[in-house]
Amino acid sequence: MRQQNSDQLQKSESLTTQLVMASQPYIYELKMKVRDYECDLQGIVNNANYQHYFEHTRHEFLLSKGVSFSELHKQGIDAVVVKVEMVFKASLKPMDEFLSKLYLKKEGLRYIFYQAIYRISDNRLCIIAKTDNAILINGKLGYCEVLDKIAEEAKIN
Amino acid sequence: MRQQNSDQLQKSESLTTQLVMASQPYIYELKMKVRDYECDLQGIVNNANYQHYFEHTRHEFLLSKGVSFSELHKQGIDAVVVKVEMVFKASLKPMDEFLSKLYLKKEGLRYIFYQAIYRISDNRLCIIAKTDNAILINGKLGYCEVLDKIAEEAKIN
Amino acid sequence: MRQQNSDQLQKSESLTTQLVMASQPYIYELKMKVRDYECDLQGIVNNANYQHYFEHTRHEFLLSKGVSFSELHKQGIDAVVVKVEMVFKASLKPMDEFLSKLYLKKEGLRYIFYQAIYRISDNRLCIIAKTDNAILINGKLGYCEVLDKIAEEAKIN
Amino acid sequence: MRQQNSDQLQKSESLTTQLVMASQPYIYELKMKVRDYECDLQGIVNNANYQHYFEHTRHEFLLSKGVSFSELHKQGIDAVVVKVEMVFKASLKPMDEFLSKLYLKKEGLRYIFYQAIYRISDNRLCIIAKTDNAILINGKLGYCEVLDKIAEEAKIN
Repeated sequence: MRQQNSDQLQKSESLTTQLVMASQPYIYELKMKVRDYECDLQGIVNNANYQHYFEHTRHEFLLSKGVSFSELHKQGIDAVVVKVEMVFKASLKPMDEFLSKLYLKKEGLRYIFYQAIYRISDNRLCIIAKTDNAILINGKLGYCEVLDKIAEEAKIN
Repeated sequence: MRQQNSDQLQKSESLTTQLVMASQPYIYELKMKVRDYECDLQGIVNNANYQHYFEHTRHEFLLSKGVSFSELHKQGIDAVVVKVEMVFKASLKPMDEFLSKLYLKKEGLRYIFYQAIYRISDNRLCIIAKTDNAILINGKLGYCEVLDKIAEEAKIN
Repeated sequence: MRQQNSDQLQKSESLTTQLVMASQPYIYELKMKVRDYECDLQGIVNNANYQHYFEHTRHEFLLSKGVSFSELHKQGIDAVVVKVEMVFKASLKPMDEFLSKLYLKKEGLRYIFYQAIYRISDNRLCIIAKTDNAILINGKLGYCEVLDKIAEEAKIN
Repeated sequence: MRQQNSDQLQKSESLTTQLVMASQPYIYELKMKVRDYECDLQGIVNNANYQHYFEHTRHEFLLSKGVSFSELHKQGIDAVVVKVEMVFKASLKPMDEFLSKLYLKKEGLRYIFYQAIYRISDNRLCIIAKTDNAILINGKLGYCEVLDKIAEEAKIN
């Protein structure tokens, strides 16, 4: 094993990163803190937990707009993730506090969340994500007027 | 909320899907089964758990080649995920058995795993993923000769 | 910080341990393997995951008897845990394979699972647990004839 | 399946409950909120997650006293759970906010946390737990002066 410089790694970031960076300004942010049990044997937050952070942030955002993910489910309306892209730029560690931010956009029938996690101690961008969601109404593809309204409002901001 | 047909959704699959589909034939597969606790209030496997499935499959694959993720960590060598792309095509449910398959390719300094999950009951492709990994040796970007050899062998197959 | 011998710790094991040890012979066992993501920053399986292992074992046991936890839920019948006792005797580590065993007993309206995890490499008893479950039928305490029959059969064995 | 009244279930609560109830007044509390991904297919928080809540509360309590679980680990000092007892009295659901409270006591070489979760909306006691912890110093049983001091202070309060 030998060490090399990181130029080659950085170059390939490209598209996803650019797209996500362009999504600012974010319309919602949630302050969170790493919990020790979310870290794995490498001593850093296990990757799957970032999806948990992002999901929780989306749901809290929706709640702030009066929309409950669990209530929607009871009504036969399910928001489902159809695509996820995540780029990891720095790892979160035990005791780290962070801001989980998002922006919402509608493209066709998809509700697309651009999300990012910033470590509070040094304002460093740690992880960025793009999550495409679809609305299933009793199992069939549909749309949700409340979400459409939120996406419209986000556009104006 | 109204329902529409799913054409518009399908069209946008595009690139990621094609890339991943092209990655066959896979060089490793692991039979797994959904555990009830992995399902969320929608009654389907929570998205973050697919990352767990994929991670576990990568680690079992490495073990089958004599490489232990946890032993590497003890030696100061960490395989870290730098990018994830996942496309969700069908949800796994309680009791579902599935095959988790992978293909490995090296691009520059990145070890790229193309992964897919097929439900066993009907051989349906459920989730596809592309995971870019980097090797950090005592925190600096490097490479791993054993992984390089595995990637070389995969190419020949 | 100073080290002392472990006599004092062992002595206090007492009741729970004895009860659980007495539950043998077990009527079901499931072979499992630690997944790296289940380990926390101490490099050992995080305690909460043993509850996952135990839950999964109970559900697989029920399935082997033709009873599905998720199907029961759809019918308005929920098996809920009302009490858990766990004694940790040795930690599971990455790559460990283990047998998760159980015994079922009915006491009053409670379905009590005595469970234990044995590491395969050295047959060491790692964790023992006693889980009391109640049956809720549309939210009210009830009982389940199928489970009663299983508990009766277990008694005979 | 038939429904019966819950007297028989309540009677058997007994010892654990009494012990834990006696532990008040608590010396630390942490406000938390259920995250949707912590709920399972029954639509309520999965039992294993209460262990996560309790663990996170203990670690935040320690941090409030200047003790970091992850830093201890780096120094070769591991707090490990040797026994857990939990009694479940009411389930937490999506959107529930709750107070996670604890009391610390030293018994022999064990650091015993009495913990309870109260739902904020109606101040209902939902789950109580007693967790016995041991200190391992480079793998051998020991004790931790800082924790001893905290336990002493708790006694006075």
